[in-house]
Amino acid sequence: MEQQTMVRVAVDAMGGDNAPAVMIEGAVLAVCEDSRVHVVLVGKEESIREELEKYTYDKERITVMPAAEIITNDEAPVMAVRHKKESSLVKAMTLVKNNEADAFISAGSTGAVLVGAQLIVGRLPGVERPPLAPLIPTDTGVALLIDCGANVDARASHLVQFAKMGSVYMENVIGVKNPRVAIVNIGTEEEKGNALVKETFPLLKNCNEINFIGSIEAREIPAGAADVIVCEAFVGNVILKLYEGLATTLIAKVKRGMMSTFRSKIGALLVKPALKKTLKAMDTAEYGGAPMLGLNGLVVKTHGSSKGIEIKNSILQCIAFKEQNISEKIRTSIVVNENK
Amino acid sequence: MEQQTMVRVAVDAMGGDNAPAVMIEGAVLAVCEDSRVHVVLVGKEESIREELEKYTYDKERITVMPAAEIITNDEAPVMAVRHKKESSLVKAMTLVKNNEADAFISAGSTGAVLVGAQLIVGRLPGVERPPLAPLIPTDTGVALLIDCGANVDARASHLVQFAKMGSVYMENVIGVKNPRVAIVNIGTEEEKGNALVKETFPLLKNCNEINFIGSIEAREIPAGAADVIVCEAFVGNVILKLYEGLATTLIAKVKRGMMSTFRSKIGALLVKPALKKTLKAMDTAEYGGAPMLGLNGLVVKTHGSSKGIEIKNSILQCIAFKEQNISEKIRTSIVVNENK
Repeated sequence: MEQQTMVRVAVDAMGGDNAPAVMIEGAVLAVCEDSRVHVVLVGKEESIREELEKYTYDKERITVMPAAEIITNDEAPVMAVRHKKESSLVKAMTLVKNNEADAFISAGSTGAVLVGAQLIVGRLPGVERPPLAPLIPTDTGVALLIDCGANVDARASHLVQFAKMGSVYMENVIGVKNPRVAIVNIGTEEEKGNALVKETFPLLKNCNEINFIGSIEAREIPAGAADVIVCEAFVGNVILKLYEGLATTLIAKVKRGMMSTFRSKIGALLVKPALKKTLKAMDTAEYGGAPMLGLNGLVVKTHGSSKGIEIKNSILQCIAFKEQNISEKIRTSIVVNENK
Repeated sequence: MEQQTMVRVAVDAMGGDNAPAVMIEGAVLAVCEDSRVHVVLVGKEESIREELEKYTYDKERITVMPAAEIITNDEAPVMAVRHKKESSLVKAMTLVKNNEADAFISAGSTGAVLVGAQLIVGRLPGVERPPLAPLIPTDTGVALLIDCGANVDARASHLVQFAKMGSVYMENVIGVKNPRVAIVNIGTEEEKGNALVKETFPLLKNCNEINFIGSIEAREIPAGAADVIVCEAFVGNVILKLYEGLATTLIAKVKRGMMSTFRSKIGALLVKPALKKTLKAMDTAEYGGAPMLGLNGLVVKTHGSSKGIEIKNSILQCIAFKEQNISEKIRTSIVVNENK
């Protein structure tokens, strides 16, 4: 019988608004759902064990690594990562660096995760800037938004690497054959754009390893017009945040509209189950956290407000990442570029 | 008896997907709704008169100015504006330049409108870059998104002028007292941002004429967290387009969800009237076109797909612009800046 791969995920149990409770809940859900997962919960041992006692699970597949310190959102990321050697974030990331874990997950300080990824986990050879690349829901499925906040004021060569890494991820982890790559622009004509886009466009066009379909206007993103949405981090962050904010506002407006008259309240009761299912597809939490690509291992940043299901989904996406050998594929795609 | 101000609006009757029909419909609706409006329809005389015959209106308040040429979306804007002297766009803009009209409205080529605004209508003294500033719907009303596509790769000094012009517009045209000005950023802390935002932030903070409330994340825009949203044109364009695209996708999803089961179909009939009213508030067409500020007169660009109601609203917003003497107020606010 074939030996099953074990995917070792180091979870920063102390990061996020609802830590450690939801981190432990997510870990338990993940090991119960998939037998290939082994989770190391890193953080305050007593708190973690107390939470773990609430659940029934395979005790061999969740271990606890004590860490005395916590990095908070208020701390300057570089200082915190450099000085808090006993923090759950630093200790969990060090497991990945030392190849004692395949992936790292945190719902804590984004700044500290980005800094730790570079300083502790480290970049793959040839990768200039590791991008943060969340999946966003579209009308037809999901799209990868790359980069989304890791590298502001990026250069054209960085965006080309983002396009390659994003293609590898969408094809091998999400299973989209020959993913359509587009660059975010303010028009679809080739001559449109700011200086960065004008410089990047021809480089992407000449890139044989990716399926570049040209510019995409932000209007077309929710419709699912591309699979890999390449943009500079500032723009990507605006897209991600507006996605979340506008969806929240619109759904609240729909709910208030439904509750505004007696007649509509009755109607609301009848449409509720069907609507819930539809709107769930547009909920970013369904798709787990945002992977940071181009590193010596997988780093996943989930929302600070993540619930257990998002943590579980974040842990489960590490399986495909490891089994498909994404780091090696990314390394190859970047090296090909470098030698051209 | 006080003499009533007459607001003279030059309408490019030939620009846009549904021209000239909707342009004429909008003009008729506007003069019927407000007695202060006089419209000059510029374009192919025969087509315009044919449309006008369908309506009953005060014939003294709509005049027709013949123009033989049309500038299309496919033409290079600078070339088109320079060479098509007989186009409806150039002739209508020339009316504003010569002070024969107070405002210009077009649903045609955005590029040609932006170029014509600079080359024909001209900038107010001291204005470095005239921004395009649409109103976007929020949960609590509207916000002005400035700049939204007129000047990519803008500098910090441009953004400061945008903040001032936007404040004047929101306070005097929309009637928001002491409008809250915020700069789009990827975090709310002062040290966050790209190079442009980091340079602009302290300049806005030191600007006494505006009510600067700091950074705004895109997530907070739909909730109505600021009245004047300052950003570079590329980012503003992404926000505007994503707003439109995401609203369309989400509303379509809600509708499909409601029609997915027999039970929900019955419910949909009951919630429909209430929901229609709620969602209307999030429809950009309700708020007319995007004004371009800082010019010797008002230039309004409406959607290419505008319907008659959007054209009407675009024409009506010219009244407050003239009566409140916005150009003079913008000139003063910019000059104050220059002399500091």
